[in-house]
Amino acid sequence: MLRATKDLLGEVGYQRLTFEGIARRAGVSKATIYRWWPNKAALVIEALSGEVPLPPIHETGDLEADLRTAVRLTIELVSAMPTCLILPALLADVIEDPTGTGAFAELIEPRRTSVVKLLERARLEGRLPPDTDTSLMVDVYSGTVVYLAAVNRIPPGEAVVGQLVSLLLHGHLPVPKGPAPAEREESPGA
Amino acid sequence: MLRATKDLLGEVGYQRLTFEGIARRAGVSKATIYRWWPNKAALVIEALSGEVPLPPIHETGDLEADLRTAVRLTIELVSAMPTCLILPALLADVIEDPTGTGAFAELIEPRRTSVVKLLERARLEGRLPPDTDTSLMVDVYSGTVVYLAAVNRIPPGEAVVGQLVSLLLHGHLPVPKGPAPAEREESPGA
Repeated sequence: MLRATKDLLGEVGYQRLTFEGIARRAGVSKATIYRWWPNKAALVIEALSGEVPLPPIHETGDLEADLRTAVRLTIELVSAMPTCLILPALLADVIEDPTGTGAFAELIEPRRTSVVKLLERARLEGRLPPDTDTSLMVDVYSGTVVYLAAVNRIPPGEAVVGQLVSLLLHGHLPVPKGPAPAEREESPGA
Repeated sequence: MLRATKDLLGEVGYQRLTFEGIARRAGVSKATIYRWWPNKAALVIEALSGEVPLPPIHETGDLEADLRTAVRLTIELVSAMPTCLILPALLADVIEDPTGTGAFAELIEPRRTSVVKLLERARLEGRLPPDTDTSLMVDVYSGTVVYLAAVNRIPPGEAVVGQLVSLLLHGHLPVPKGPAPAEREESPGA
């Protein structure tokens, strides 16, 4: 089912993907799919990430390294989506369907909670300013990654990981150094 | 036409909005609409913002005030969208249609360029670190605003303006002080 979903996604895109099509490709009934996945978004997230809900991140205790991992995992999730095209459609879908949104929030919850928790621990131990909004930190890197992937149609690369971590931990958003200028992401946004 | 578009948006949502429906409501032919707007996204942006392309921001020379204005204008654009639901759908739409994407980039270009320009001036005058990635600064606040609006289904408030400006200019992302805790945005993101 997950294989059929992934294949069809690549062929027809998210908006034209249907449970009917997946059932036909996988040789099962639509009812079988509905038994396991409440909606298209949940099925697609599992097909792309391999895991639903997304597992918490593995914490090392090194704040900078852990935050890099968190940003990288968000980029990986976005990168798993064929040609980066489906994320906004998927978001739109779960937003139009209230049940879908709940499911989406549940899917990302363990991952998100684990990152906020490690940032909170850093805050309480004085490795972040005491009044830091750790929840908004997660929204800043998630939002920027999703936005760049959607607008540029290509997920941001490793340079952006470093830039976002530098901004969030050191308040410095430098232009990335090397490798070649071609490696540098264009960022035409709203 | 803009009035009919706005009304229908509120009634049926972006995904079910069609040129046929707008033409019927406005009492004109579909061809008339196509003469002026290349696609649904362009028509909707003009209906919501009142202006296409979005005008450049009015610069005062006070970096902090100007950046606040830029963030606020992004929030305003997002807020003009009925119940905040349509932005991801609109993005998905312009992304699926290559011509649409070009049009979208053109629509936001003057606004975006004006903000990057004022940040570049600040950088060259030493009001920002010399290696600052001013283009990514715009993506960070745009991405965060769009993401928060999409995930929370309510546009971020004035507190978030202050937080993002503080992060981008001072590297500090504090929890907003007062007014009431109810005013504070929840931020459940990915």
